Amino acid sequence: MADPINTRCDLMMFGALGDLAQRKLFPALYQLELAGLLHKGSRILAIARNRADTEEVRKILLDKLREHVKKDEFDAEVAESFLQRVDYQFLDFTDPDGYSALNDWRSEESSNLIVYMATPPSMYGLIARNLRSKGCCDQDTRVVVEKPIGHDLESSKVINDELGEVFNENQLFRIDHYLGKETVQNLIALRFANNLFASQWDQNHISHVEISVAESVGIEGRWGYFDKAGQVRDMVQNHLLQLLCLIAMDPPSDLSADSIRNEKVKVLKALRRITPDLMDTHVVRGQYTAGTSGGKPVPGYLEEEGAIKGSKTETFVALKAEIDNWRWSGVPFYIRTGKRLPEKLSQIIIHFKPAPHYIFDPDQKHLANNKLIIRLQPDEGMSLQILTKDQGLDKGMRLRQGPLELTFSETFETDRIPDAYERLLWEVMKGNQYLFVRRDEVEHAWQWVDQIMRNWEDSGVPPKRYAAGTWGPVASIAMITRDGRSWYEDA
Amino acid sequence: MADPINTRCDLMMFGALGDLAQRKLFPALYQLELAGLLHKGSRILAIARNRADTEEVRKILLDKLREHVKKDEFDAEVAESFLQRVDYQFLDFTDPDGYSALNDWRSEESSNLIVYMATPPSMYGLIARNLRSKGCCDQDTRVVVEKPIGHDLESSKVINDELGEVFNENQLFRIDHYLGKETVQNLIALRFANNLFASQWDQNHISHVEISVAESVGIEGRWGYFDKAGQVRDMVQNHLLQLLCLIAMDPPSDLSADSIRNEKVKVLKALRRITPDLMDTHVVRGQYTAGTSGGKPVPGYLEEEGAIKGSKTETFVALKAEIDNWRWSGVPFYIRTGKRLPEKLSQIIIHFKPAPHYIFDPDQKHLANNKLIIRLQPDEGMSLQILTKDQGLDKGMRLRQGPLELTFSETFETDRIPDAYERLLWEVMKGNQYLFVRRDEVEHAWQWVDQIMRNWEDSGVPPKRYAAGTWGPVASIAMITRDGRSWYEDA
Repeated sequence: MADPINTRCDLMMFGALGDLAQRKLFPALYQLELAGLLHKGSRILAIARNRADTEEVRKILLDKLREHVKKDEFDAEVAESFLQRVDYQFLDFTDPDGYSALNDWRSEESSNLIVYMATPPSMYGLIARNLRSKGCCDQDTRVVVEKPIGHDLESSKVINDELGEVFNENQLFRIDHYLGKETVQNLIALRFANNLFASQWDQNHISHVEISVAESVGIEGRWGYFDKAGQVRDMVQNHLLQLLCLIAMDPPSDLSADSIRNEKVKVLKALRRITPDLMDTHVVRGQYTAGTSGGKPVPGYLEEEGAIKGSKTETFVALKAEIDNWRWSGVPFYIRTGKRLPEKLSQIIIHFKPAPHYIFDPDQKHLANNKLIIRLQPDEGMSLQILTKDQGLDKGMRLRQGPLELTFSETFETDRIPDAYERLLWEVMKGNQYLFVRRDEVEHAWQWVDQIMRNWEDSGVPPKRYAAGTWGPVASIAMITRDGRSWYEDA
Repeated sequence: MADPINTRCDLMMFGALGDLAQRKLFPALYQLELAGLLHKGSRILAIARNRADTEEVRKILLDKLREHVKKDEFDAEVAESFLQRVDYQFLDFTDPDGYSALNDWRSEESSNLIVYMATPPSMYGLIARNLRSKGCCDQDTRVVVEKPIGHDLESSKVINDELGEVFNENQLFRIDHYLGKETVQNLIALRFANNLFASQWDQNHISHVEISVAESVGIEGRWGYFDKAGQVRDMVQNHLLQLLCLIAMDPPSDLSADSIRNEKVKVLKALRRITPDLMDTHVVRGQYTAGTSGGKPVPGYLEEEGAIKGSKTETFVALKAEIDNWRWSGVPFYIRTGKRLPEKLSQIIIHFKPAPHYIFDPDQKHLANNKLIIRLQPDEGMSLQILTKDQGLDKGMRLRQGPLELTFSETFETDRIPDAYERLLWEVMKGNQYLFVRRDEVEHAWQWVDQIMRNWEDSGVPPKRYAAGTWGPVASIAMITRDGRSWYEDA
């Protein structure tokens, strides 16, 4: 694969003045500059529908870098030389003739062209077609697109078809920023480089898996947007199913993008469809009511600014996912995600089965299963729950849960953890697709969640209420309790 | 089992003014007092061959407590009330009539009698017979004896027979103080309470095991004593084989003393005999020559004070032990122990096999086996070597060895780690034999090491030299290198 330090990249950033580009993409590119990972000839064309010139845009970008880069990582000189790479091009995305200007900007020297569409997905097809018609792209161009790819299977196909008319699948880099997180990639190292785990990663040794992605915030002024999506489209279809795939996939024979993605698709295809008869036991839909967050009273979902009374959109969902294959038969994956929960927390918990026979004090038997806890938020890291002998002299053979801890930021002190977008942009420059989502992944994921949403629609059952600041509807606790289990609480 | 806080104990301490009693046993009893674990009526009779009275002996004991108890754990008031339990009795151990005085001291109230023989083993039979003949003991008396139980199988049988004439096996508490160490007991919790380990504890998942017990000191003025024993008798026959047993034993069905000891004996019986033809590949005998220790020049073993020229006694031994049973076939246990090594260090390393297939960078393949490191010295604790993804942005899928660490003194900050003798005395008071060595264990261990020493004698080959301050003879490195492995170095 090409090494970006030695390879020029011309990066066209569509939507360069939008929120994502300002908050995440330019700061990530700045970090690559800081780390010395950008070829000195690489250039960036900021493209947007605002009338402005390059100097004005550079000023805006500088202000935004100051705002979004951590103070101790901001270096004015580096920022300055970074911004020298940036030119600005006004463009009405719908006007084919405007695209000619993009050609004028291209380097004469050979370089990789990367097109980043930080625009609404409805623009993807249009931009793609215009790029082609003006000869702005070729078969080597890499195209980065953001979620959401549609709001259901059908609409995602339309977007993917439009992109597919112009680009081959191996040119398309569909972002799920969870895949750029250090701990998420670490799942691959953890699972396949450690036989201690690899040899136990199946239904013989694991009883169940928990995936929790909790947000403490509410709708944050995006009520109209969010209400059309809901938590399943916003979080489950992409992030949570990606996590599930990385945990559940069979070992790939190598680390190539397609070896990994083939295995992920196999998981998605093996997900048991949640048919209407399973809804009562496998799905809990929730919507928050007024409560407290961070000690302050907050309104309910239907009382937020811009809310439409009677909306049934879910702000919380708990699912019991089952994977019908040899590795996972009988091992439920309990997943839950919601807004206005008590804290911001993303974690995966692998619950190993207890030993077949137990010889310690009977009252401690409930402790006797090992757990591997993988934290994505707030502190990336992991810990392994191991039972050891309790120490006090008078403790005899009492057991104690002693975690073996590995917190990345503490253990590897010299390193900063790169933001997901830094990693992802770097991989695009290298042309490595393994952290990007393939079309069939997107579509199988939609297929599975579409069924759930169709069931909700058909039944007309409203979401269950939960007070803001609680862990979701009581029914989500009942769902796991029925199986003799409970959500892991990190005491 | 009796709870000692609620049960009076009368403890007779033979050899009460000897080094072991002063340095280890009384400080341990003081700690039990400090922890509130002694029944208020429990008493101690210090017995020795010195003419002295109780007040004099209490003074001596107080001085020794001050010397051997850590400053922040010494409480003058507690020491005072502890010493009130102590009476002194002069006794010529060989004079049967003298023993009558011991009966005068016994409480009228019912209490458990514990006899601690902190004397040379040659005295055990004599003391036992005299105790019986004067009616000082009965079938409930517990008798604690120290190593060495003989210097070979035959002599150990003599001692055990003498003790066995007076006491039943269930009255005998043979001390191996390694079994009192927190980390050693923790092996039982670790192995059998954690299915993550229990299910991998065999030749399918473990490639080999290392046990290293290194001392930095030399002979410390005990040349004559040590020269008759040597490192195999002094360390391997007892401590190292006990560690090997706890690592290798099959899971006991319960935690009763005999369930555990039966499993340990099975291991000792399955140890492959090291016949003369195996000596070249399985045993390295070493003796240190002049070198440095702690930065200072030190003399060789044959130049120590009192040394007899031409002694072939080993101060170092490395062994490749093989266990011929279903669990361990093909898994060598490499053990080594020696004096004048670079540091004081006791550790056990379980080397797990790598995953069957390897998909990361080829130059990192040598990292790909998990290791569980159990430290007994200097900091009791354990760590699990896990591979994670290296973090830096430019690292791609590079691996890194990240230890999951559990250091007892750090993790469980509130607790002090009890000294081995505290634990062992407490278990004697409770009447629990699981941390004590049964006769057949002693004898099987002697049988195995006797063979090695007989081979040395028969061959007449002298020990290999190693400079003080090095890790033993080069041959000990060659021994493991031949198998494509190396001693673990904790970098």
